[in-house]
This record gives sequence, structure tokens and C-alpha cells, in this order.
Amino acid sequence: MATATNAPTAAPATTLNGVPVDQLVATVAAIQAIPSLAKFNFRINNAWSGGSQNRSTAAGFYGAGQQQSRTQPFILEADEPAVLLGKDTAANPVEHLLHALASCLTTSMVYHAAARGIRIERVESTFEGDIDLRGFLELDKSVRQGYQGIRVTFKIKADVPEDRLSEILRLGSAHSPVFDSLLNGVPISLTAKSL
Amino acid sequence: MATATNAPTAAPATTLNGVPVDQLVATVAAIQAIPSLAKFNFRINNAWSGGSQNRSTAAGFYGAGQQQSRTQPFILEADEPAVLLGKDTAANPVEHLLHALASCLTTSMVYHAAARGIRIERVESTFEGDIDLRGFLELDKSVRQGYQGIRVTFKIKADVPEDRLSEILRLGSAHSPVFDSLLNGVPISLTAKSL
Repeated sequence: MATATNAPTAAPATTLNGVPVDQLVATVAAIQAIPSLAKFNFRINNAWSGGSQNRSTAAGFYGAGQQQSRTQPFILEADEPAVLLGKDTAANPVEHLLHALASCLTTSMVYHAAARGIRIERVESTFEGDIDLRGFLELDKSVRQGYQGIRVTFKIKADVPEDRLSEILRLGSAHSPVFDSLLNGVPISLTAKSL
Repeated sequence: MATATNAPTAAPATTLNGVPVDQLVATVAAIQAIPSLAKFNFRINNAWSGGSQNRSTAAGFYGAGQQQSRTQPFILEADEPAVLLGKDTAANPVEHLLHALASCLTTSMVYHAAARGIRIERVESTFEGDIDLRGFLELDKSVRQGYQGIRVTFKIKADVPEDRLSEILRLGSAHSPVFDSLLNGVPISLTAKSL
């Protein structure tokens, strides 16, 4: 296994925060040499199960120059709670959105801290967002359908002074693909076909 | 159970597409009478498990004028595939984002079709998006961290002529909270504290 001794910001250990820093450094070097290795295409398939219920499968993706497939696809369920006319068998779509944001901010923060030799011991976070259903129900055109705002609180245990914790969190928000996507928006194209 | 006979757009049946249209009509009437019932606050807690792994819990939310709690919280896992230095035990954050979008567009479309008396038999969809890892790795400042674009294809079996399928899909995109959030962006506030 390669060591990270030739990386300017690498940690002394080859693994920090559970992140294989040597592989991270090797990935950066590979992409610097061949930028097309950085191109990823993620995809899911979804099937409606009736009413408020549907299910996505995440089987494979394209990245690092090739198709990447999993032996077993991941199944992601969605439903709505009773008050939103569902059966409450799974988290609902806007909760899944908060999970996507939470998981991406956390992983981005931990990876970039590891690359800088910052040891993180524990991370917990809360995410909450406001939605006014009058947007979804088209009862008030001035009310948006989506989240009006999302508030994020991270609690971090790390070997830095407390006043530097916001810098560590910024390692997440400055690099997270989901944070950027949700904060700044993404172009989305829609096509409908007959089944 | 109330019937939907007094609703201008209600279907003949009280349930259509698996959606209890009578309850949907009653919800609209309740919110028209008391607009504050439309205010929802969704939330999750996330805990880092080390490296690429973390887990969210969706236990309860505020909506319809009161705290709503589940007897058992839903657990949402996240990991990264090996090529992104993870253990590949769960879908990754950007796949969860596609699931949030897929589930919300599907549910929004099905609910609004039911409210208009449009019967939908089957729905399947694919979602794919492009990410250039040079954004995450800060190797090129001109490359964004997030999705550069997302392409959505819905296949729908419904009792309408094929050239009206895009109108049915538009019932989803015009009302979906996640679609609006992701297309147009959401203000996000971040706070870091010591654990």
C-alpha cells in the first residue's frame, strides 16, 4: 500500500477519521494526471407501489473511468405519514432530502479534515426545515412548494479549539455535492413516456 | 367516512391511485379554514459512524397543528462505494438525493392526478446526474461540487392519450417540494458546536 508521505497535507497515519488518506492522496494524483477519471454519473430507478409508496434501487454508477456495479442493489423506500395520507411505512421524500444533505455534509467534512490531518472523534447533527403545505396544494401562489429554509446544527468532538469548529464544518459545506446542489439549485430535465 | 361529492375536482371513488381523495379534499378544506395547519417542520438527526458511514433517524415532525411522532423512528443509512473510499454498505448521499427527488415527484404526481380524477396504473422512472469530482476535491475552481444536471425519465401507464403524459408529469413537477427545493435552491443556515 502506498503511504501518504509525498502529500503536502497528509496526516501521519495512512488512515485518519476512518478515511484511507493514502488512497485519497492517490485518487487526487490520478485525477490530476487524467481529469476524465473525475467524471461520475449516478443513477437510480424508481417504481411506484400505489398511493404514497414508491421504491428506488441504486444498483450501479459510472465513475473513475468505468461502470461500477454492485452485486446487490440498495433499496430505498418512501412513504408518507398518515397526516399526509400515507401508510407511514418509510421516511417521506422531504425527510430523505434532509438525510442526503446530512450524510453528504458529514462525509465531506470528515474526508477533508482527514486530508488536512485533523482528527475528528465524534459528529452528531440535526437538520430541520419548514414547508408550508399551501404551496403543494396550490392554495396560495405566493407560497413555494419546497423548503422555505433548512437549519443545520453540528456537534463535533475534535482536537481543535472550540472556536475552530466552524472552520471544520466549513470543510463540509465548501465541498459537499448535496449542499451545493440544494443551496444553489440544479438544472433538471423531465421526459414522460408511455409504459 | 365523508364522501368527496362536494369537491369540484374529486374523482367518483373516494380512493383513486391509492390516494384517499376524500381525505385530500378534507385536508384542503381544513387548511382553507385554518391556514396555520399547513405549516410543517420536518427534521432528522444524524450520527457519524466513522469514515464514509453515517446514519439518520427520522422520528417525528410538526404538522397539522401538532407534533407528530412515530412509534419507531425510520433509520436511513449512508456510505460510499469503494472507489470513493467507503465500504459500500448503503447508498451514498448523492444517490439518496436522487431518491428524494424521485419519490417526491412520483407522490406529487399521483396525488394531484387523483385530485383531478385521473387514474394512473403504473409509474416507473429513472434519474441520473453528473458530478465532476474535481469540484469536491478542489482541483478546479470552475467545477461545481454538486450535480451539474439531472435527467429524469418517467414511464407512465394511465387512461389518457400518450400526448397528455407530459401534462401528468407536470402535475408532479409543479407541486413537488423536493423538485422545487432542488431546482431553485434553499437557504441553509449552519451552526457548529462542541460535543
